[in-house]
Amino acid sequence: MTNNVEEFNAYRERMNGKLLGDNNKIIKRIFNLDTNAFAPGALDVKTKELLGLVASTVLRCDDCVKYHLETSYNHGLKKEEVMEALSIATLVGGTIVIPHLRRAYEYWEELETSTEKV
Amino acid sequence: MTNNVEEFNAYRERMNGKLLGDNNKIIKRIFNLDTNAFAPGALDVKTKELLGLVASTVLRCDDCVKYHLETSYNHGLKKEEVMEALSIATLVGGTIVIPHLRRAYEYWEELETSTEKV
Amino acid sequence: MTNNVEEFNAYRERMNGKLLGDNNKIIKRIFNLDTNAFAPGALDVKTKELLGLVASTVLRCDDCVKYHLETSYNHGLKKEEVMEALSIATLVGGTIVIPHLRRAYEYWEELETSTEKV
Amino acid sequence: MTNNVEEFNAYRERMNGKLLGDNNKIIKRIFNLDTNAFAPGALDVKTKELLGLVASTVLRCDDCVKYHLETSYNHGLKKEEVMEALSIATLVGGTIVIPHLRRAYEYWEELETSTEKV
Amino acid sequence: MTNNVEEFNAYRERMNGKLLGDNNKIIKRIFNLDTNAFAPGALDVKTKELLGLVASTVLRCDDCVKYHLETSYNHGLKKEEVMEALSIATLVGGTIVIPHLRRAYEYWEELETSTEKV
Amino acid sequence: MTNNVEEFNAYRERMNGKLLGDNNKIIKRIFNLDTNAFAPGALDVKTKELLGLVASTVLRCDDCVKYHLETSYNHGLKKEEVMEALSIATLVGGTIVIPHLRRAYEYWEELETSTEKV
Repeated sequence: MTNNVEEFNAYRERMNGKLLGDNNKIIKRIFNLDTNAFAPGALDVKTKELLGLVASTVLRCDDCVKYHLETSYNHGLKKEEVMEALSIATLVGGTIVIPHLRRAYEYWEELETSTEKV
Repeated sequence: MTNNVEEFNAYRERMNGKLLGDNNKIIKRIFNLDTNAFAPGALDVKTKELLGLVASTVLRCDDCVKYHLETSYNHGLKKEEVMEALSIATLVGGTIVIPHLRRAYEYWEELETSTEKV
Repeated sequence: MTNNVEEFNAYRERMNGKLLGDNNKIIKRIFNLDTNAFAPGALDVKTKELLGLVASTVLRCDDCVKYHLETSYNHGLKKEEVMEALSIATLVGGTIVIPHLRRAYEYWEELETSTEKV
Repeated sequence: MTNNVEEFNAYRERMNGKLLGDNNKIIKRIFNLDTNAFAPGALDVKTKELLGLVASTVLRCDDCVKYHLETSYNHGLKKEEVMEALSIATLVGGTIVIPHLRRAYEYWEELETSTEKV
Repeated sequence: MTNNVEEFNAYRERMNGKLLGDNNKIIKRIFNLDTNAFAPGALDVKTKELLGLVASTVLRCDDCVKYHLETSYNHGLKKEEVMEALSIATLVGGTIVIPHLRRAYEYWEELETSTEKV
Repeated sequence: MTNNVEEFNAYRERMNGKLLGDNNKIIKRIFNLDTNAFAPGALDVKTKELLGLVASTVLRCDDCVKYHLETSYNHGLKKEEVMEALSIATLVGGTIVIPHLRRAYEYWEELETSTEKV
């Protein structure tokens, strides 16, 4: 598996474990809400993942983008669909989104590579 | 028809006319791109409208939210679907999104009222 | 009582009622968290209100600023303390915060006036 | 003179007077820096005004945009130059800048009208 | 002492030295204001540090967060207090704050480790 | 030539190539607009580069800042002019801009070094 995908997930899990290990209720509940908000409802999971991805991209949060790229990938979204969502994010959010678009593209390739290798 | 919907659209159209009447190529092309980006492609129009709505909401642009609420409404998106998209925006963007959520909810009601009256 | 304070609260309550009346769980829980986060804990209520105020100010959310000014006022924070918090927000967030500072100052005066009149 | 230009300036001056009347040193010094930063230096005043305008526009601060439109206007910048600066702001900041562009265009027209009437 | 804390401080000091070594008055004065704004006044130093920390967190500036974590730590703020402030920042600023929360938690641990070792 | 300048440009070019190699029209046109917007017009190229630099700085996009520092450098802008533009960005955008200012200063030095070595 590609190092970047692995490393990102390992760091994320380790630190989330620490954050949730402490007894801060607000933080725990926000993490919990995050799981619920992306469950199927009036909208299906794929649409919700794209909404999370676009929100993360226009707010220029690289780690959030990586997270939603991975969940999008795992839910079977195609590269074309993801790129179309990212193009809307770039138009709405402006050219300052471009560096994040480059990193998103790179991470998507790493997700594809990491799966092929398995 | 409700005054707020009408007024918003009239102002928007009048000022867009002026902006496009001037010969600034960059502005003209950005407006043009905006039309193209939301046309059907790998993703359907409804999904794209929700992406535009969520991007506008987390970036807290009330006029952009109104615009995408209206196009979402006209493309037949249901209130439940729109609210689910907005709930993701509020979670990702935080409680500072709430005042925009109130105004979005109000505008959606005005869209519904304005149609009933016709 | 001053019209601005009254109007702001009436609108807020009416729309919050509608938002919570719908059955969107995510939105309901975010509202709920908002109440919990500002309850006394390791930090006292006054400190928390100032934290909420500064967060709202640097993110330039006028309605959030108004809300935290009012709760700060009701918890007995003094104008001097509030202004010192707002000066930190202006330094950290830059001169684009100044228009929000003007509106915050004005709203604080309205809070003072509305109480005197009672 | 146009009401909007007059009203904006009157409110700004009245509230700035109050903010500076209080003895908050940080706020006083930030206001002071604001005057110094736009004085001629390695860059001339016109260039600096355009920098202030573009910074205000991408950060989507309508009142800051109005202020820099007025100082740009008073320093003799032409509509074409201002629009070119605003087109860069719209490209860099994305389509969420467009509602602010509409209001900027409208305010520039009001500045032109208010001068003609004198 | 932990490498991360040391490295961050060394880089910060070296570059600040260069920035202040040049004769740009505006930059010098902003640095100066930064020192004054966090001095004790109507609010005590601990409260001010938490305000600086929350402002930095919702604006998602990792280096600013590190700086205020260190000054908070040096002024004797407890982990519980800092985490409560950060939970408010996460609620107000949304889940896009979470990656910064992970890094903040990690840096706090490094601050604790670096002191123990002395 | 300095590694940082070289590496940044190599990565940028490689990923831009991939992004443009895909057939996403919106992304292609945004890249195209970016070239057009900074061409000479009512404003000269140097002024436009400074506008792009300040917009990138207040929006705190390090890669965009690097890009505009390099084009500014290549168009013959002097360090003093660039620093004056950056000081306006810091004042307007607040102290959260300072970490980006440090990195900008460092990159400018690397641009100077990389040229001397040629």
